[in-house]
Amino acid sequence: MQEAVPSLPVSLADIERAAGLLAGNILPTPCLEAPKLSRLTGAEVYVKYENLQVTNSFKERGAFIRLSALSEEERRRGVIAMSAGNHAQAVAYHAQRLSIPATIVMPVTTPFVKVASTRSRGANVILEGETLAEAQIAVERLIAAHDFVLIHPYDDPAVIAGQGTIGLEMLSSVPGLDDLIVPVGGGGLISGIAIAARAIKPTIRITGVESVLFPSMGAALGGREVRCGGNTLAEGIAVKNVGRLTRAVCEALVDAVVAVGEDLIEQAIFSYLTEQKTMAEGAGAAGLAALLADPERYRGRKVGLVLCGGNIDPRILASIMVRQLARHGQIIALRIEIDDRPGSLGRLTSLIGALGGNILGVSHHRLFLSIPAKGASVDVTLEVRDPDHGATIQNELEAQGFHSECIDIGAADIA
Amino acid sequence: MQEAVPSLPVSLADIERAAGLLAGNILPTPCLEAPKLSRLTGAEVYVKYENLQVTNSFKERGAFIRLSALSEEERRRGVIAMSAGNHAQAVAYHAQRLSIPATIVMPVTTPFVKVASTRSRGANVILEGETLAEAQIAVERLIAAHDFVLIHPYDDPAVIAGQGTIGLEMLSSVPGLDDLIVPVGGGGLISGIAIAARAIKPTIRITGVESVLFPSMGAALGGREVRCGGNTLAEGIAVKNVGRLTRAVCEALVDAVVAVGEDLIEQAIFSYLTEQKTMAEGAGAAGLAALLADPERYRGRKVGLVLCGGNIDPRILASIMVRQLARHGQIIALRIEIDDRPGSLGRLTSLIGALGGNILGVSHHRLFLSIPAKGASVDVTLEVRDPDHGATIQNELEAQGFHSECIDIGAADIA
Repeated sequence: MQEAVPSLPVSLADIERAAGLLAGNILPTPCLEAPKLSRLTGAEVYVKYENLQVTNSFKERGAFIRLSALSEEERRRGVIAMSAGNHAQAVAYHAQRLSIPATIVMPVTTPFVKVASTRSRGANVILEGETLAEAQIAVERLIAAHDFVLIHPYDDPAVIAGQGTIGLEMLSSVPGLDDLIVPVGGGGLISGIAIAARAIKPTIRITGVESVLFPSMGAALGGREVRCGGNTLAEGIAVKNVGRLTRAVCEALVDAVVAVGEDLIEQAIFSYLTEQKTMAEGAGAAGLAALLADPERYRGRKVGLVLCGGNIDPRILASIMVRQLARHGQIIALRIEIDDRPGSLGRLTSLIGALGGNILGVSHHRLFLSIPAKGASVDVTLEVRDPDHGATIQNELEAQGFHSECIDIGAADIA
Repeated sequence: MQEAVPSLPVSLADIERAAGLLAGNILPTPCLEAPKLSRLTGAEVYVKYENLQVTNSFKERGAFIRLSALSEEERRRGVIAMSAGNHAQAVAYHAQRLSIPATIVMPVTTPFVKVASTRSRGANVILEGETLAEAQIAVERLIAAHDFVLIHPYDDPAVIAGQGTIGLEMLSSVPGLDDLIVPVGGGGLISGIAIAARAIKPTIRITGVESVLFPSMGAALGGREVRCGGNTLAEGIAVKNVGRLTRAVCEALVDAVVAVGEDLIEQAIFSYLTEQKTMAEGAGAAGLAALLADPERYRGRKVGLVLCGGNIDPRILASIMVRQLARHGQIIALRIEIDDRPGSLGRLTSLIGALGGNILGVSHHRLFLSIPAKGASVDVTLEVRDPDHGATIQNELEAQGFHSECIDIGAADIA
């Protein structure tokens, strides 16, 4: 394949060299069959667990290869990177291991835990700019002043070669793979994987995945202008400007780039956690989201998903779990009219318990707002087996004189 | 070692034979370095990810080996098992694969999701008894009536040999292990692992872990009577009566059995999820809990943890996450006195936002209970960077005329 596409910036040989350099410097992450996800989707699903890397994302591969390529003189000058996320952790971690001074520029809005974590890897963290564009100005100023070497997160042949080692490893573990589904931000990950996988197995199908809120690579390949923006769960692939090199590789080797909705990304995070017992960040779950979005495209085929990162805020994750249980009708909230006299609440809650509903919370706080002459209302949040069980409870409550209606559990406020 | 302890019911050769039988019938779970857990504990930590098995626990190993040992005639009669948890899933799954009829008895209190999951594996699920003891009576009745073969969850040489394959695999992946920390319920897992590991590496130290609420193996080995019971997060190792065979093996080969508190099990679940991006049930996290309980015992040593299962209720997990954030002072709730007039709440919440607090919820529901002449109070739940940040916000609120006090966030009610 390399001969047929002479313009590619990285070759299979480059990626094989990168694999040799990485051995012993990153963890050997597994690529394992995920039968419950296969059952869920109808494909034969394999997962590459890049969330098990030390900094919990694939970014270490490209960062290490780029750092390894520095000259002695460049190492002395030190490196700089701009990132609020996984690239920052990866550069800081491997720069520290290689004794290279690292400066990381993060927007001032970066969550404290990420700042602390990057500092704990020995990096000099500079908080500047409200946005990445403003932080970029700081990077340029620091490079002008200190002659730091920029470690680009994706548009660099060494970085692409490093990420490509994932493709080598997946096809070495599971040679029969028919499909690879790869999250796309700037395009470094999919470019490297596509070069490796196509060279080894020309018939393999490669699909990129973006969030519908940031469909920049799909637009670039289609020659369309799009507006990117919004509050995505997949901030790791929320990139407005794809790379020049990566765009060329995707144009040559990627079969399709699809955009998935935030609801499917949320569902994929939940499925990874509950079915596969692993924690994916939004970008890490995007591949599974694409599979859930279009199962027919993959039915019966051996599909490799790149679970590229696992760094998600625990509070967001808790919220996702409760929201999904609510969506599946396993947590419901009922606003129930009761007589405003002693014993009513006791009778109501005993009845719910006897019907097998597990009461999670009771709230009286509407008492003073909705005051029928002789009544009141309470909101009861309860756990039920499934939507049918919830309906049975509502019917039985009605029969016992308690009129109820379902209300939103407000999970977003809860956890 | 086998020669020195002739009374052991299982030999290394039995376990090696079991490994041969298991190949291709269970997933090849990885044993990987976990550098963030090493950083957290001071040991060099390796994790065996048995939560990645199809039914998300190690129980498949013993169940498959026991089922494989059935005669043709026994296969026709069918098997029975009593379990509300991982053993049920494991027996149902492999019996279905081997076309052996399986009956699973579960207490009537078993969560519906577990019942449904076991039925989906083709097993005949019988719900009977409020407790496991009552369910046991049903098992005996069914065996008398149908001549089913009982698949014991732990006190059986074939089961012990199956579980022992984990020991082979861990020492094959990481020959330098100094310690193994293994959760103990009935004792099947630790017995198999201890036989394998001691035979391969006589100097290895083996520590069993129980919940303080069910310290039955420790008591049995110490010749003590204990009361077992209580609402443990680690229901997978909540066993009152250890096995006869397993007790003998533990007596011969296990260096110590320790009991860990529920708070440490909760912390270990949280650390596995946030540091290692993997989901452990309570029993699965018990090994890490033991390491957190006594880091000096393991400092600088290569420690292998058996993450033996990942089946935890998503709602419990969400609750644990929020509770841990609250314990770390990253989610706080403040009851704040405000003037009961238009604009007060706006001024308050704007101030909190300006101080960097992320408001998760505002509750007015005390309004009608505590009514000073000209004031009111609101409860604000907010996310802060750390306890210092929370204190800074409280001080600044006070300076601006908003008196506040910390209240319990009631996370248990929340998620």
